[in-house]
Amino acid sequence: MSKETLRVLTGITTSGTPHLGNYVGAIRPTVIASRTAGMEGYYFLADYHALIKTGGDPARVQRSTLEIAATWIAAGLDPERVTFYRQSDIPEIPELTWFLTCVCGKGLLNRAHAYKAAVDKNRAAGLTEDEDAGVSAGLFMYPVLMAADILMFNAHRVPVGRDQIQHIEMARDIAASFNHLYGEHFTLPEAQIEETVATLPGLDGRKMSKSYDNTIPLFTPREQLKKLIAGIKTDSRAPGEPKDTEGSALFQIYEAFATPEETAQLRRAYAEGIAWGQAKELLFERIDREIAPMRETYQALIDHPERLEEMLKAGAAKARRIATPFTAKLRHAVGLRDLRTQATGKKDKAAKSALPSFKQYREADGQFYFKFVDAQGQLLLQSAGYASPKDAGAAIKALQADDAALAQLPVPTDAEALRAALRLLREAAEA
Amino acid sequence: MSKETLRVLTGITTSGTPHLGNYVGAIRPTVIASRTAGMEGYYFLADYHALIKTGGDPARVQRSTLEIAATWIAAGLDPERVTFYRQSDIPEIPELTWFLTCVCGKGLLNRAHAYKAAVDKNRAAGLTEDEDAGVSAGLFMYPVLMAADILMFNAHRVPVGRDQIQHIEMARDIAASFNHLYGEHFTLPEAQIEETVATLPGLDGRKMSKSYDNTIPLFTPREQLKKLIAGIKTDSRAPGEPKDTEGSALFQIYEAFATPEETAQLRRAYAEGIAWGQAKELLFERIDREIAPMRETYQALIDHPERLEEMLKAGAAKARRIATPFTAKLRHAVGLRDLRTQATGKKDKAAKSALPSFKQYREADGQFYFKFVDAQGQLLLQSAGYASPKDAGAAIKALQADDAALAQLPVPTDAEALRAALRLLREAAEA
Repeated sequence: MSKETLRVLTGITTSGTPHLGNYVGAIRPTVIASRTAGMEGYYFLADYHALIKTGGDPARVQRSTLEIAATWIAAGLDPERVTFYRQSDIPEIPELTWFLTCVCGKGLLNRAHAYKAAVDKNRAAGLTEDEDAGVSAGLFMYPVLMAADILMFNAHRVPVGRDQIQHIEMARDIAASFNHLYGEHFTLPEAQIEETVATLPGLDGRKMSKSYDNTIPLFTPREQLKKLIAGIKTDSRAPGEPKDTEGSALFQIYEAFATPEETAQLRRAYAEGIAWGQAKELLFERIDREIAPMRETYQALIDHPERLEEMLKAGAAKARRIATPFTAKLRHAVGLRDLRTQATGKKDKAAKSALPSFKQYREADGQFYFKFVDAQGQLLLQSAGYASPKDAGAAIKALQADDAALAQLPVPTDAEALRAALRLLREAAEA
Repeated sequence: MSKETLRVLTGITTSGTPHLGNYVGAIRPTVIASRTAGMEGYYFLADYHALIKTGGDPARVQRSTLEIAATWIAAGLDPERVTFYRQSDIPEIPELTWFLTCVCGKGLLNRAHAYKAAVDKNRAAGLTEDEDAGVSAGLFMYPVLMAADILMFNAHRVPVGRDQIQHIEMARDIAASFNHLYGEHFTLPEAQIEETVATLPGLDGRKMSKSYDNTIPLFTPREQLKKLIAGIKTDSRAPGEPKDTEGSALFQIYEAFATPEETAQLRRAYAEGIAWGQAKELLFERIDREIAPMRETYQALIDHPERLEEMLKAGAAKARRIATPFTAKLRHAVGLRDLRTQATGKKDKAAKSALPSFKQYREADGQFYFKFVDAQGQLLLQSAGYASPKDAGAAIKALQADDAALAQLPVPTDAEALRAALRLLREAAEA
């Protein structure tokens, strides 16, 4: 990976149906960002996180996963260009969560905003005897899971709203603790603050949010969209009376979809006394113009969940090409090691000769190859052909240094034995 | 699994070198218990737990894992009879830990003895501003990881000392919460209290414990064992003077190894004024008689870590034959589902005909077979032969009900697709 590549990671918790507010505030900007040159994007469906919020509603988690995956793709995310995956397809994530739990001070978690808000609510309700009433350990541990999400891919940047900055700071703290104890494994991530995150007003003028029950689902059918928009709260000014754009939910939603010219036009229409009904019609048509083509893609994906499942499986495989060897390194770092790599205290020639080894050779096709065999001469890895012995040698050197090089090689079924042998070799080199 | 089989689970944290106290208090009794008829034993090296205690000492975790594994086998544990595995070889354990974290009240963890002891210590030290100073989230979350260890295998009994009963009660509480939210998945475990757990005195007369630096390593070489025993604290009574067995560390250690007759004999020798040197000689010979044969096995295993590695890998495969399908069930229960199992709301004949299906047939060998194919007719599973169509039908029925039946069948490489298809079928049957 070149030094210039910026790794950016974004997850969405799979606990609801995407609405216009999610689209404007999160989905649309992340899709635009995914097209930035020099950026390596990680986009994931945070379904382990969803279990905190939706305890006991499995159908909703499943449905939401489908809907959010379909939304991201319909909105233009290119799974070939980015790494697009479902958190729960990466078994290394909960494992890393445990490693990080062990290096994270409990005091750090006591200070998390979301946890403190829950405690404050209990206090306000007079529950001074049990300030943790109704608080799950999941809510308390959430920042550690989030740290695992970020650190697994050594993301440089995580786009967040102001209210989420603390989580990124916690991930930095946890990463620093781990690095201090076990060596420099993690990049310290930075929050990429979205100052201009448009929070869209909902039907009642408050922030559009599931908890206020004032949302407009992003991919509701055209007729339903029209009906919902007709229900947006307005004041009672009659047609012909000039209207305020300030504080008008309708105007703010329009602005989030329109060009500056279109917005200026509506502003004039407000001043000229456009009827609310007509303004709603304008808003509906403007939103539908942007959404309609996506709606078709969305519906096709919802009707064919197997396509999304396949995409996510492919994305998980791509993500695990990083997560699996990286976790193997972390396991070794913390002491979860293949026992065969144990230093027995007897370092003699017999032990040396019992090491796995690389064999380089040239084939009749004129190309240069190597194989990697264990102490008994059994084949662990067979390379493809290289143009020069120098190239083959460089590939061997990379393997001696690090499992990361495996990603470029045809890894056999028994990858575990191969990795163990490589570790053995590296440890012997250090000894 | 027959109703009469009692599943018993024991883990040892891999954070130190086994000493005589561990042997008498934990290793020897668990090995004896492992031979009980009608018992299904799960014995594991708790290396994820070790990360809480030994942060930053990976070599010690690795070494301890090797030593505890070798000790258990040397002491007579039969890995063919029990399931003997290393916790960190079961990736389903950290995943289950997260599921349980989400259903566990934080308040429950606040009341854990080990956590409260750490807080009390801080308070006593005057750290009232930060009662959690130096407390890791790992210490706080430890009971949830332990619950995952137990619940993964639906253990009925967990042998513990009195100080550990609370952990089993917490595992019951957590299991009950999960069952309440997601259906009856977990057996509620019971503590099997070892009233007579011999806590052995150490060299200085206090309880033998690493933290007092008063231990006698179990498999120290014979000469070293002799030297250490010579260092056991005694009073200053001269040879010929009668000696007290009460409060004599030497006598208590002897008793833990000797037959009642041998113990009675030493009691008489004490009364008759045996010299301390002679008593120590007797103790040394008695312990060595029991330990010497194990010491050889132990040393051979330490010298050949690849044998233990192989044993543990085989044990992990055995454990995962339970853990993997069970976790698949739990994942489905909480809502982490293959998107292809999504109810699309369109239940027509086309959908029905697009389901995977079982095909039964008879081969030229006179036996009855079935295969399981997906909607496109691609083979997902091929059975072995059955004596009668009834037997083949029963196997199909079992598969329709539950993934557990897969354990009896030759499962192909793409087991994931197979399981997804079975789930699809079951969901369609329910719909």
